[in-house]
Amino acid sequence: MTTRTVALTLNAGSSSLKFGLFDIAAGPVEMASGLVESIGGQPRLRAEFGAAAAPVTRDLTGAEAADHHGALATALDVLRAQFPEARAGVVGHRVVHGGPGFTEPVEITPSVMAELRRLSPFAPIHQPHNLAGIEAAQAAFPEAMQVACFDTAFHRSHPKVNDVFALPREYYDKGVRRYGFHGLSYDYISGELARIAPLIHDGRVIVAHLGNGASMCGMVGGRSIASTMGFTALDGLPMGTRTGQIDPGVIFYLVQQEGLSIDEVRQLFYTKSGLLGLSGLSNDMRTLEAAGTVEANEAIDYFVFRIRRELGGLAAALGGLDALVFCGGIGENSRLIRERVCEDMAWIGLELDRERNTRNDTVISTDMSRARIMVVPTNEELVIARAARRLSAAPA
Amino acid sequence: MTTRTVALTLNAGSSSLKFGLFDIAAGPVEMASGLVESIGGQPRLRAEFGAAAAPVTRDLTGAEAADHHGALATALDVLRAQFPEARAGVVGHRVVHGGPGFTEPVEITPSVMAELRRLSPFAPIHQPHNLAGIEAAQAAFPEAMQVACFDTAFHRSHPKVNDVFALPREYYDKGVRRYGFHGLSYDYISGELARIAPLIHDGRVIVAHLGNGASMCGMVGGRSIASTMGFTALDGLPMGTRTGQIDPGVIFYLVQQEGLSIDEVRQLFYTKSGLLGLSGLSNDMRTLEAAGTVEANEAIDYFVFRIRRELGGLAAALGGLDALVFCGGIGENSRLIRERVCEDMAWIGLELDRERNTRNDTVISTDMSRARIMVVPTNEELVIARAARRLSAAPA
Repeated sequence: MTTRTVALTLNAGSSSLKFGLFDIAAGPVEMASGLVESIGGQPRLRAEFGAAAAPVTRDLTGAEAADHHGALATALDVLRAQFPEARAGVVGHRVVHGGPGFTEPVEITPSVMAELRRLSPFAPIHQPHNLAGIEAAQAAFPEAMQVACFDTAFHRSHPKVNDVFALPREYYDKGVRRYGFHGLSYDYISGELARIAPLIHDGRVIVAHLGNGASMCGMVGGRSIASTMGFTALDGLPMGTRTGQIDPGVIFYLVQQEGLSIDEVRQLFYTKSGLLGLSGLSNDMRTLEAAGTVEANEAIDYFVFRIRRELGGLAAALGGLDALVFCGGIGENSRLIRERVCEDMAWIGLELDRERNTRNDTVISTDMSRARIMVVPTNEELVIARAARRLSAAPA
Repeated sequence: MTTRTVALTLNAGSSSLKFGLFDIAAGPVEMASGLVESIGGQPRLRAEFGAAAAPVTRDLTGAEAADHHGALATALDVLRAQFPEARAGVVGHRVVHGGPGFTEPVEITPSVMAELRRLSPFAPIHQPHNLAGIEAAQAAFPEAMQVACFDTAFHRSHPKVNDVFALPREYYDKGVRRYGFHGLSYDYISGELARIAPLIHDGRVIVAHLGNGASMCGMVGGRSIASTMGFTALDGLPMGTRTGQIDPGVIFYLVQQEGLSIDEVRQLFYTKSGLLGLSGLSNDMRTLEAAGTVEANEAIDYFVFRIRRELGGLAAALGGLDALVFCGGIGENSRLIRERVCEDMAWIGLELDRERNTRNDTVISTDMSRARIMVVPTNEELVIARAARRLSAAPA
């Protein structure tokens, strides 16, 4: 049987492993995508193969996905059964934190791996799992090139006013900076705009990546100028279970006056807050939209309002606005959220066309709107696959 | 000798006591103002009497101002020497935190005093000193009415989206809210606008109170809709020595990865950051403007940029902008900061007239500017004196 060289993409979270398989000779073109979730608990696997085959959904035994190595092995079994001719020539990894240094995807050499470990304290909840995914892939494919793609890299073009906090200068030098995240998504959207709307790409664009994690990015000419996220993925917009922007004084109060430990506060801010905390119901926007309770509506109101407020703030960073682009699970699917974000925004040049919004068109502003409003589905895996293809094709 | 009933205003900080004396029959009209600083250390007193007499400046012995009681007694000696006929009928106090409940100035009854003590954990650095000032005044003037004026009260008109953090709902009920501060200053500016520019007062106004503490307030019809400060006076704009807005994840990093204690982080954020931290030089804008070093310029750049970004965010909260008003030490005096904040702000309707700005006119926008830019000197003491007069004149 002839073999076919493919790229595998991996996105390893604390208890999940997302994977994708791409034909790199052809594009790259996605062949399969899937997810192992509840690793270390009662794991489940889901895989889709486009038109090639029916999706697979399986409850796994604990032993099949006790850790990221096991989860990867189980995922590979499913992929090999479907594509026996595929041979992974390169594995692309999503890595949350590239620190101040990594401005683009890189081959993971031993010295890069050491540097990624050194950055773990900047993202202690995410980075170690990303690195576990890399180790699992190195063990499974010792011959393949491993490539790291960073959530922070796209934002390294920030001017210093958007990179710094007002701390003593040594903290900036130590790496306490406004990194920004969701960079793979913004990179994809920037590329899509260049392809489908080059004049808009060249202007002042705010992209709202609204999913369970949520942030916004201000771009000029397709390059990131500012982001709502800062040093960690906690800052900026409220999220499914994360606070977003919050007065740091709240932490001093909770620790020094209410007696919480710093770890309890961290857990509170990361896992019990955001839409879940405000609604007392769910971190899922679909559930909240359907609920109609006072609490769910207050959570939606706050989410919408903070997006609007950051929209104004980012527009100031860009010196005005030529387009607002929605992406991510909520941005691509919630007509209500898009409508409410754009309500009474004529002052900033935005006028929503309700019919286009209801139809989920690509352009959902009116013809008379001074700035464009768009919906562009994002694809972080494809950005990883492209980087994997590019780096593996480059002369050594 | 005929006595004359006057109002005394007090603003007690951690190691300072600002005081003012007002003729309340006449207006109120300021008779004297002054400051005891370095209480408990090597205290100094400064007092001014307008045209009535030459200013007094004195180094005090430690015993003359060992605490707020001593500082007040010393200040009263100086005031009595100048105005032997004056009798304090009412004492008005600036109190930083009025919690969710106090929406306007109140007479300090024993139950009010108990409530103010209960609010101390919300402002542990400021509130106890405010209360020490009240106790000192009660001891010195047992017959006088004592009145509390709150920095938070003006903002209690915020809609809920501007009052809440994305925490579990019980924290809101416990009082963890976006209070906002500098309310006495904003109240004064709102009143001045009603007097000198009623049409602007009725519109959408952003007031930038820029001093050693700094915040911005968005108003509609003279009422506060949103503020850059939140639960404490640490949030929002960078200040002389305070961080302003910062990713809460930085705190988790400094405690859990760098080993700082929560109290060390609090000290760092409150006393070593802001303009001082970024410049490595000074918390004083005049010093930074004169310095011309890379570091001083970066501190100024950051200060200006954050004001611009919050300007956009507040405009979104107001649904657009009719006027921007500068006040506070920096806002009233720094032509450079005003110029740089307003640079390239045509997108939001602001166009600065450089000559008017250089002359420190009240209106410093061009005649063609869509929104007005103004400079309005603030006067927090007068707001306290007016409240003291109003409450002491009211029928019991």
